[in-house]
Order: sequence, then C-alpha cells, then structure tokens
Amino acid sequence: MMINVGIIGATGHTGEELISVLLNHPYVRLSRLYNTSEEEQKISDAFPQFKGRIELTCSKPDMKDIAAHCDLVFLALPHTVSMNFVPRLLKMGKKVIDLSADYRIKNTKVYEKFYHKAHKDKINLKNAVYGLPELYRAKIKSAKLVANPGCYATSAILALAPLAAFNLIDAKSIIIDAKSGVSGAGKKLEKGLLFLEANEDFRAYKVNVHQHMPEISNILSRLAGKNIPITFVPHLLPLNRGILSTVYAKKAKKSKLNLLNLYRKFYKKEPFVRIKEEGNFPRIKDVALTNYCDIGIKEDADNVIVICAIDNLLKGASGQAVQNMNIMYKFPETTALV
Amino acid sequence: MMINVGIIGATGHTGEELISVLLNHPYVRLSRLYNTSEEEQKISDAFPQFKGRIELTCSKPDMKDIAAHCDLVFLALPHTVSMNFVPRLLKMGKKVIDLSADYRIKNTKVYEKFYHKAHKDKINLKNAVYGLPELYRAKIKSAKLVANPGCYATSAILALAPLAAFNLIDAKSIIIDAKSGVSGAGKKLEKGLLFLEANEDFRAYKVNVHQHMPEISNILSRLAGKNIPITFVPHLLPLNRGILSTVYAKKAKKSKLNLLNLYRKFYKKEPFVRIKEEGNFPRIKDVALTNYCDIGIKEDADNVIVICAIDNLLKGASGQAVQNMNIMYKFPETTALV
Amino acid sequence: MMINVGIIGATGHTGEELISVLLNHPYVRLSRLYNTSEEEQKISDAFPQFKGRIELTCSKPDMKDIAAHCDLVFLALPHTVSMNFVPRLLKMGKKVIDLSADYRIKNTKVYEKFYHKAHKDKINLKNAVYGLPELYRAKIKSAKLVANPGCYATSAILALAPLAAFNLIDAKSIIIDAKSGVSGAGKKLEKGLLFLEANEDFRAYKVNVHQHMPEISNILSRLAGKNIPITFVPHLLPLNRGILSTVYAKKAKKSKLNLLNLYRKFYKKEPFVRIKEEGNFPRIKDVALTNYCDIGIKEDADNVIVICAIDNLLKGASGQAVQNMNIMYKFPETTALV
Amino acid sequence: MMINVGIIGATGHTGEELISVLLNHPYVRLSRLYNTSEEEQKISDAFPQFKGRIELTCSKPDMKDIAAHCDLVFLALPHTVSMNFVPRLLKMGKKVIDLSADYRIKNTKVYEKFYHKAHKDKINLKNAVYGLPELYRAKIKSAKLVANPGCYATSAILALAPLAAFNLIDAKSIIIDAKSGVSGAGKKLEKGLLFLEANEDFRAYKVNVHQHMPEISNILSRLAGKNIPITFVPHLLPLNRGILSTVYAKKAKKSKLNLLNLYRKFYKKEPFVRIKEEGNFPRIKDVALTNYCDIGIKEDADNVIVICAIDNLLKGASGQAVQNMNIMYKFPETTALV
Repeated sequence: MMINVGIIGATGHTGEELISVLLNHPYVRLSRLYNTSEEEQKISDAFPQFKGRIELTCSKPDMKDIAAHCDLVFLALPHTVSMNFVPRLLKMGKKVIDLSADYRIKNTKVYEKFYHKAHKDKINLKNAVYGLPELYRAKIKSAKLVANPGCYATSAILALAPLAAFNLIDAKSIIIDAKSGVSGAGKKLEKGLLFLEANEDFRAYKVNVHQHMPEISNILSRLAGKNIPITFVPHLLPLNRGILSTVYAKKAKKSKLNLLNLYRKFYKKEPFVRIKEEGNFPRIKDVALTNYCDIGIKEDADNVIVICAIDNLLKGASGQAVQNMNIMYKFPETTALV
Repeated sequence: MMINVGIIGATGHTGEELISVLLNHPYVRLSRLYNTSEEEQKISDAFPQFKGRIELTCSKPDMKDIAAHCDLVFLALPHTVSMNFVPRLLKMGKKVIDLSADYRIKNTKVYEKFYHKAHKDKINLKNAVYGLPELYRAKIKSAKLVANPGCYATSAILALAPLAAFNLIDAKSIIIDAKSGVSGAGKKLEKGLLFLEANEDFRAYKVNVHQHMPEISNILSRLAGKNIPITFVPHLLPLNRGILSTVYAKKAKKSKLNLLNLYRKFYKKEPFVRIKEEGNFPRIKDVALTNYCDIGIKEDADNVIVICAIDNLLKGASGQAVQNMNIMYKFPETTALV
Repeated sequence: MMINVGIIGATGHTGEELISVLLNHPYVRLSRLYNTSEEEQKISDAFPQFKGRIELTCSKPDMKDIAAHCDLVFLALPHTVSMNFVPRLLKMGKKVIDLSADYRIKNTKVYEKFYHKAHKDKINLKNAVYGLPELYRAKIKSAKLVANPGCYATSAILALAPLAAFNLIDAKSIIIDAKSGVSGAGKKLEKGLLFLEANEDFRAYKVNVHQHMPEISNILSRLAGKNIPITFVPHLLPLNRGILSTVYAKKAKKSKLNLLNLYRKFYKKEPFVRIKEEGNFPRIKDVALTNYCDIGIKEDADNVIVICAIDNLLKGASGQAVQNMNIMYKFPETTALV
Repeated sequence: MMINVGIIGATGHTGEELISVLLNHPYVRLSRLYNTSEEEQKISDAFPQFKGRIELTCSKPDMKDIAAHCDLVFLALPHTVSMNFVPRLLKMGKKVIDLSADYRIKNTKVYEKFYHKAHKDKINLKNAVYGLPELYRAKIKSAKLVANPGCYATSAILALAPLAAFNLIDAKSIIIDAKSGVSGAGKKLEKGLLFLEANEDFRAYKVNVHQHMPEISNILSRLAGKNIPITFVPHLLPLNRGILSTVYAKKAKKSKLNLLNLYRKFYKKEPFVRIKEEGNFPRIKDVALTNYCDIGIKEDADNVIVICAIDNLLKGASGQAVQNMNIMYKFPETTALV
C-alpha cells in the first residue's frame, strides 16, 4: 500500500526534515508541498541538497488540491497557524499530524497564556491524540489528528515517564536542565541565531518560563494521576542538532527498586528508546540524525539523575511525526527511520 | 616595584594563559619558564602566537636557578605533581600560587579519595590559603602559599556564596548543572578530546563524582557553618573556553528578602563580579577572554535558580591566579586583567 | 539477489560510514566485521549509535571465516596494510573494494615515494580498476578489485575531468586549493586533531606534497593523453565532514565553447554529479551526508575557476565504494545512496 | 600625552573591536561614542562584556560635540557612509581614520563600480593615505586622513608586496584563494550568516568579483610600477575571526634568489609581520586576537606559494587602525597591540 502525503510548511526546518525522511519511505508518495508565502518556490531551490531527488514546487495550500492529492497532511507550521488548517482538513476526511503546539495542550487557558493567542478549534483539540508512541501508541493507531510533541517535551517526558507512572519521586522536586542545538529555534532571522552570537557561546534562555513547560507537566501529571510541576531551564548549544536533558528528582521514599531495571522494563518493547548500561550516559553524537532516544540513569539513596538525548529534528519533531504516521497506517513502525 | 616571576608547567593550558596575561603586566618580569619534560623547548615554538613577544626557553625546574631568578612561582602543574615542588619553594622563601588541586582540600582523606594519591605535604597544606579573593582576600594578602581554586569550583561557589553565607537555602537541595568548554580538560591526547568527538556533540561526564565536588562542598560548608552536600553534573560543551553553571536550590523558608539585591550587596565591592539585571542572564560570550564572573538570578516563592558564567582559563584558573598575585603584592587588583 | 558482505577495518571512519550505508541496503547482508586489533569488540560498543541496529562483533580477519561468509570484502584499512590482504582474498575468488591507496597508483616507484613502503602486490595492482564511476564505469562492472579513489582526488578529478578530456586548458596551469573537514584525517590520536587545535582554526598542511597529488595527476594525464602536473594545497576546515576544492586553470586557447554547457553534457547521465546554474556555486552543506558531487563554474576569456564539493566520507570514500559495489553487482547504482 | 578619541559607528564589529583595544591604550581617552541609529544606547547594553569597564552612551554624531571632545575620530561605518562625515571632520581640524572603503580607491569610477554609489568627496580622497604601515609608514606619520585597508586586502598585499616590489612574478599569474571567518561579513541580519547556515558549512562567494579586488590590484600595481591584475576567490569559514589567504604565482624568470630570505629582509623591521621558518606555515590560531600577520613561503623552480594569516578584526581592521593612530601620534607603534 502506498499513501499520498502532503506537507504544509515545507520550507521550514521540520518541513525540510520531513522531506528528507519521507524520500526514503517505501510506502509514501510525497505528492504535494505547500508553503505559506505568496511566492511559489521549487523545493530544490529552497533546499539545494534535494536537487535531483525531488522536483516538486511549493505553493500556497489549496484545499481542493489537497482533497485530490493527499491522504495525510503534515502541518510543519508555526504555533497558532496550524489551527487555521486543521478543521478543514479533518472535515475533508484527511488524517493530520500537526507538528506545532496547537493541539498539544487540552487546557485552552494555559495554551493562550503561553502562546499568546486564543484557541480557535476547541472541538478538534478535544479529540487530538498526543503523539508520543511510547505512551499513547494505542490511541495513535486510530487517531485522525495527532499532536506531535515538542522537542524538549519529548526528551523530558521520556526521561521521567517511568518515575511518574509509578510515583517514585517527590512530585515537587523535578528539575529539568535542558540543552538544545540551534535548529530547535527554527529558521527565524534573529540576532541571537547569528553564527557570531551562537558560536563559542552558551546561554540559558526563557528561564523557567518556556512554553514546553505546561506540555511536560500535563503529560507527567496524567501519568502520575496527580499534579506534577516542574522547574525547567533551557539552554542554547553551539551545534546544529540534538537535545540533551539532565533531569534531577528526589525519590519519594527509600526503596530497593533498581531504577535502571525499571527503565529497561518500561521501555523494553520500544524500538527507539535505548537504555545505557550502568555508568554510561547518552551523548548527542549517538542520536543525532537518528530517531533514537538514549537514556542513562544514576541513583543514590535519595536522588535520581536521568540524562536523555534525542535529535530535536527527528525524535523531537519530524522523525516522531513519521513514526506516528507509520503507526496510523500500520506500516512497520521503524520504516524509513533506521 | 617590579617582581620576578617563574612558571613551572609553562607549556600546559594554564601556563599558556598565565604567559598571555603576564606579558601585559607592568609590574612583572617573566624571568623563568619551566616544563617537566626532559627536552628544552623555546616557548615560541610551543606557542607560535608568542613569537616576537617572549624569547624564553623552557627547561626542567632547577631550584638554584629559581632561587636566583624568581620572587614568586606559579605552579601550572597536574594534580599530585605540585606537592613535589611546594615544600622546597617555600623553604627558599618564595611565594607560591599553585593552580593544581593539591592544596585546596584540607582533609587529606578526601583528597586521596578523589585524586588517588596520598598527600605528601600536610604541613604546608594546613597553611595554604584558598585563593578565591571574593571570600578570602584578607588572608590572601599575607599568604605564602595560595591554592588557586578549580574552575568549576569558582563558578559554583561564587554562584552560591551569598545563599550559603546567610543560610537562605535548604542545605540538602543544591543541584549544580555545570557546562564547560573543552579547554577545561587540559591538553591531554585523549580520544574524547578529539575534534570529531567533541564537535557537534554534548555530553555529561563524571556524573556526580567529579573531583571538584569536595572543594565546592567544603567552602560552602565553611561559609554556612554546617555541612552542605551538593549534587554536581559537569558536561562538555563544543567550544574552546568558558563555563556556565546553572544552580538550583530550595529556599530554607519563605522570606521577603530580594535575592537579586542580596547578591548586589554581597559582591558590591568586587571588581570582577557583575550581577545581571532582573530577567537577564549571563552568557559565556560576555566573559570569555576576561576575568569577570557574571551572575543572574531567578527566584519564586520556593526556589532559586542562579546562573553563573566565567572563562575557565581566566577567572577559573590563570586570571584568578594573577588576581591573587596582585593582592599578595598590593598591586591594583585588576592590573593586567581588564 | 542478496550478497554477503564483510568489512576489514570496521572500526575506523570509513568502516563506520560503510556500516551506516550498508545497513540501509536492501540487497546486502552485512555478515562479518573485522578489526585489526587483538581484542574483539562489539560494533555497538565501538559505535553506540548503531546499538539496536546491528549486533555483530569485530574480530581479527580469518581467511576461512571470510571464505565461508563473504562474497565481497571492503578493505577500510590504512595505506600499506590493504596489500597484505588483497592477494589472498582474490585468490579465494572474493571481490574486493579497497578504500586505501594501495591499488590506486600504477607506478610503484611513485607509490613508494609517497607512502614510504615498497609495494608487495604488483600483479594485482596491474589489474585493479580505479573506482571512479564517472570515468571508469564500464571497467568497474567486471572488476575483481576496485581501488576506491582518495577523497581529495575524487573532488579534484571530477572538477577537472571535462577540461582535461578535451584538452581545453594549459596543462601547466592547474592549481587546486582544497579544503577538508577533520574526518579526512582519520581517527588518529594526534595533537593537531584535538578539538582545541582545530576549532576556530584553519591551516594549510602538506603544502604541495600531499600523497593524493600523483593520483590526481595520473588520472588527469590518462584523460588528456599527456602529462598533467598539478599544484595542490590542502587545508584543514573546522568542521566534521566535507571537501570543497577551488580549482584554477588557464585556458589553452580562446574558444567560444561554453564550459558550463560542456560540464552539463559531460556529466549528463551521472546520478551523483550536479552542475550548478550560472552564478551559483556549491557548498559543503548541500552535499554533506550525501553521495553527491556539486560543481560550479566561472570562466572569463583567459581563465576558468571550478568549485567542487563532496562529502569526503561518502562520495570521497564509503559512499563511492558502495556505488562501485552497486555497479559490480548490477544493483541500481543509487541503491542505499539517496 | 593623552589624546581624546571618538568613534562613529561604535556598535558594529569594528567599533566593538576598537573599544576593546583602546580601553587598554595608556595614551588614549575614549571620550565619545556615536552610533547612527535614532536611539541612544549605553555601550555596555550593546556589549555586555564591557560592563564595568566603560560607561559611555552612544548617540547620533553631533559635530559640535565632536569639535569639543575629540582630537581623532575613527569612522567604523559602512561603505558609502563615511564620506558623509569626513569633509566636516577634516574641516574642523580633526584627524580621521576611516575603516570603510570610501577613501581607499583613488579611481572614483572603479569605486563606483564596486560600491554602487558616486563618490562625494574627491578632494579629500586625493589626499587620503592608504593605511598599511608596512608600505606607507612615512606618509601615515603626517596624514590627516587615513584610509584603513580592507581585511582581505591587508592579507593579500602583505603576502605579495615583496614579489611585486621587485617584479619577481609573472604579473598575470596571481591567484588569491582567501578564507575568512564570519565576522568579516559584519553584523548584518542575513540568512547566510545564521548559525545553521554557516556552521558545518564552507562555501565560496563573490567569486572573482569581490570589492577588495581593485584595492589589492591598485596597491600591487603601484608597487610594481605596472598593472597587476588578480584572480580572487573569497570563502566563508565556520569560525568567528581570522583570514588565511593562499596565494599562487608563477615566477617571472628563473632566479637563484631565496624568497624566504627576501621576505625576511623586506619585513625585517616590521613589528607585526612574522615570517615562518622553511616548511612551516601560518595558521589562524596563532594570529587570532593579535595584530600579527604570519607569512609562510613555498617555492619551486617555477612557482611560489605564499600563505598569510591575520585576524580580520585586528590587523585586518581595528588593530591596524590603532597601529596607524600610534604612528600618527608618535606613540610606540605596538602600544595596546601586544
């Protein structure tokens, strides 16, 4: 079986990465690419690395064109823009995987606080499935609309899920010190993203106010069955791609449970989560350009440290989106991803 | 007044940096450079950037030569090596600033645990002054032997000193998530320090077992008058120089004290500590190639986050060593450092 | 059809890259990996990024084991080591693709001058096919032993082949100013390859004495039917992968021939050579992690400048090796490479 | 003697670098900083690294203010902007060092071709002195207006001056393959200067059409007493600062002259030019953050290769500007520069 796939927002980072992955997908025909600017652009002009591999031209999204040529649509759009497209796409019977934040947070007040815009599509928001396969695979299988997780959220949630699910940690003790490569910031023409600003520099930003915080907190709270606040400080690494999150928590009580074993069991059947041997810790180099999430654990009597690395553009965005598509269409889950 | 200065270990990173600073010092005559290898080497062959600026040749340290030509000696040597030189230098009446860890930790058992060697010079260890001017300036003034602080230790202690000194935080809650550029690791020919290993990578190492931990914990405990343990995870940044430490702690009790003001007062007269305005945080770029320590603070009702940036080779090593020298000789403290 | 493939030298850079490519090759079973050290090593310990994807263990090459389990063997070995293995492998009827320089240069005196060792296998050297598909595809099809080109040589020859083949340039005027990422130097533990030496630095090395010079000169001379000397200066770029060569030559005579068109025709059927539009020039970013070679041309009445970019580990080594394998086994030439 | 110095354009790259150098200059009082935007800005807000070192505020340039407070004015302005200020400054009797291209090229038609604007100040252009001390020190001593050389021009001219001055090379054979760090491009908010565009990339740009070409060609032609055209290809290095130019030329005739010796003699008294020993070549690392120009030479019977490295912001801009100021005021030439 082949499916026809379209991408709206093909000329951004996650669009570029989606194209790169989907070009190697044996069951996908990349039929249509859309941008949101007025000008048409050959995708191989936007991304010369694709020259000779794909000859599509990006134009503004046209609903009739989509209706005729796409089974599934990826939305690789900025936050607050996706919700303009989702209702129409779903009404036409298309499946949608949204890489923006628009359908990740069920509480619209929280959404509005962090994204500075009222939510326009509360009906579909209710039914959207949070696309983290390790936690919600069953729901993803039958989802019409998948809210693909944020990059920091993916790394933080996968790092903490086993502890939250079994309520093994003091709910008020969680600290997430996260570090991301520059591609996490998208393609904006901002001073802080200039080579001369980021190279040979390292800095924290949005200290404990980042928009991924409610997303992380909500999912962990669902898992734990109680409110789980977090302290979260993101930092900007002088490298292209990858996130490494160092997570600290206090244990809820003394226990003889070996956490490394717990993690191994929890993620035993997961094709993309790899638990490091005792004394070993993940590094960005090992997961960059892959869909893997590597996790290492260090514990003592009172505390646990979990270190988690992913590629922010793959497991943190476009790779995970394709993983979700594979699940929705019952393709082997790792297709085009290893 | 001019003083004659020698460096033992001139061909390592901190030696290189000392030379660079001292060449601009108006009161210092750089008289002698020593290495510990068998072969003599012109310093401008070891470091071609100094060609035309200094024509000294490094040879093995000779005590008579030192006696005749140096007032003060900097030891830019690996840990466990400095203590072979200190007793003889002090006996000859020389002042010594040791950049290694050998005289930083008063408890020799702790030293031996972290540096894997018995301490050979307990007498001088007792009298060594910990060379962090912001805390021990008075003692440094009359010191014969200064133990120059570790780079991570400098950043962590300066970040936490005001909180520890006034016992404002839960002593068991301190987490230090530290990130250092590659020069922190010295000049070893190790696989992990190759360009291809470090570039485009980021990783944690020595997770909660790093040798600077007892140094940080001891100084903070002295300040607080009680035992202050720490959780400490260092990481390796893909850049040449700089440390940024992100420090988390729980407040000891609710208080109306504004921490930003506290920090401003605490460091008011310090020439090299700069407190960032509210909502601003330090970055490595602003302190690289300087002796400054930039600190930013974020607090809420229960928690405080302190972010601290220094240049690991200057305020974290050779710059601070020269600052100590300036204090010992009553030169203006910032001489050659701004 | 599936073939069984072995790699000798699997733990070096080109070995790592071969594994990465071959894991996605639908017609290849990666049966055996060999290293040349005494110790066995799981490949996923050497390269944690492969964890979960391949579970082979590297051991010393054993001829009986190879005889039983490999149809084709890639030699990803240092220069002067490959020729120890080739005679035995060919005698057993195996096909061999050698990524070292041992079978690239027909003149053994030249080989010995540049590689400092006598050639031990002149018989097979005679029959080895130079594995640059754009020039020697027909011979590669039936080759038993392919000498996979050097990385600089690939970029320089592809940049100059059309000009040499039609004798359009002054044979004594060729200057190749080449720049390579650090992975071109292999995995040696050398001071110059440390992060602190290469990061924020750029330097020339082996100025006009590099060992790829005779390889380039020989192939160009064969094409031109006369001796073509070259001036060649390689430089080290502070990045992981990629080569960009800027090539300068004087035209042999005034002509109305449009060189851009000439290049387009010359490489018209080549799946991996892309000629840039007029006024556009290649960049490493567009070819990194691909098997493509991008070429841009600028000419005036008297001179021509050709700029050529490849990924040194793919089109410059392991990707080209797989391209050669695809040709030898009549697999579609781009299999596993786009 | 102390002089009062102002900078117009203090918030750009060369302005930042001028401040950094002048803060360490014992004979300079940095009295006034001007920007060209409407808003006033504290210089320590624009450049937090200067916090605590300088408290000036930038405002729009006011001629009366300049008249009252500056002896010398540095113009760190974009090309075509400087010539708006120079006539008034000179009329007020101020000395001016212009870091833009406006007074470098005597032929206004050539200027207009490369800078796309008519020249407005031909009178002062005529009297401007080209500020390359190694060639024009005598004239700089008494200059009112110094045209500070371009960064690429400085590296190329210093590399070729001895050969041009003695007419030792074929005038039509010169090829300059130049590579610059990103700071060479200034602080523009351009896509190509984003971290994600420049990091792990390398590319040529303005291939043989760069605006520094006439500057280089003119100065070399003056030296040689005949027209010296050049081929010039600049490239963008993924690093912050430094230029390395690799220069190729054919010898004019066979000669027994040792070029290395010639260079040593030619630059014998120059405080900032260092000639490398035979077989050694310069690297950016050795000149970064210094005002030095390192040169290495390789010759054979027919050809010569000269490699030259400078810091583009120091010897290529602000360092050289201060060197010129030192000469104009008879301060020791290396003051604040070593």
